[in-house]
Amino acid sequence: MLEAMDRDEVARSIAEVSLLRGSFTLRSGRTSRYYLDKYLFTTQPRILRALGRMLGERIGTIERDTGKRVERLAGAELGGVPLVTAASLETGLPCVLIRNQRKGYGTERRLEGVLGAGETVLVVEDVATSGGQCVEAIRVLREAGARVLAVIATIDRQEGAREAIQGESVRFEALFTKRDLGIDD
Amino acid sequence: MLEAMDRDEVARSIAEVSLLRGSFTLRSGRTSRYYLDKYLFTTQPRILRALGRMLGERIGTIERDTGKRVERLAGAELGGVPLVTAASLETGLPCVLIRNQRKGYGTERRLEGVLGAGETVLVVEDVATSGGQCVEAIRVLREAGARVLAVIATIDRQEGAREAIQGESVRFEALFTKRDLGIDD
Repeated sequence: MLEAMDRDEVARSIAEVSLLRGSFTLRSGRTSRYYLDKYLFTTQPRILRALGRMLGERIGTIERDTGKRVERLAGAELGGVPLVTAASLETGLPCVLIRNQRKGYGTERRLEGVLGAGETVLVVEDVATSGGQCVEAIRVLREAGARVLAVIATIDRQEGAREAIQGESVRFEALFTKRDLGIDD
Repeated sequence: MLEAMDRDEVARSIAEVSLLRGSFTLRSGRTSRYYLDKYLFTTQPRILRALGRMLGERIGTIERDTGKRVERLAGAELGGVPLVTAASLETGLPCVLIRNQRKGYGTERRLEGVLGAGETVLVVEDVATSGGQCVEAIRVLREAGARVLAVIATIDRQEGAREAIQGESVRFEALFTKRDLGIDD
């Protein structure tokens, strides 16, 4: 029912369904000439299945490169959840979900699912911009006792995420950059 | 890698990983002698994959029974998102995600993904108790122009959800009842 797409076709499909051009104010306050609505591609099963496969392949490459085994995947609420679910179904690796911190809730639970002490975890991210949300996810996972091996973003907007995540001594990879989606600015 | 489980095995696995016995206060204020932590089974890919298949089969049965085609799936933040994602990947049907209403945000966006006008939608729910969250999901989907055909809960705690959802003229089904998980109280 869901026939496989190659990498270029996945990039074209993501751009087709989720790329909006115009003038947008990002969460960071910066202005951008484009916006990627991640939900518009993660709610499309044909694209999501292709991304799950690509994430699975990339996890295998990272394991071979580092000589380490990924024991669990992690994804942050809400955008990362469909992606980490697809990667978990593809690889057979269990996952944890990272909740956003809500104002006024000091001691709320930040992780859903179980995380074993000292487990090697890989974070699946939707669209990486400055990397702030990834750095926060890394912090939550480390506080819960995880070793964070790597972050794989579906799309890297190339606005500082790599530097921020590598600054935490965590490997950063992306399935696509903005250029792969035909975005030049 | 993820070999298929039969229905009884899925029920046993869910109970094994996610059923806690003790004294718990539910969201409604009621006290319960057991608690089902849905994240403990939805973050396990072997169980989630089996649930995705069961949801896919049940959707097919509902389509045959009603003579209607399901055009889109829906799942509510946060617990319903892994389940609706698995069902979407299994069936090839696109989905929408329903956000919780947060205090103090009057006009926030409640749906992520696209919903076509007049689309026939089926809601995938995690654990149904009184059905309040399902009724709210039905309301949000209807306000956005959807026809809500049915709700399928993964587990029915049998505490009013069926009556509440049928009271909205929506069909209610569950993959498992509490009794299937060995819960008698």
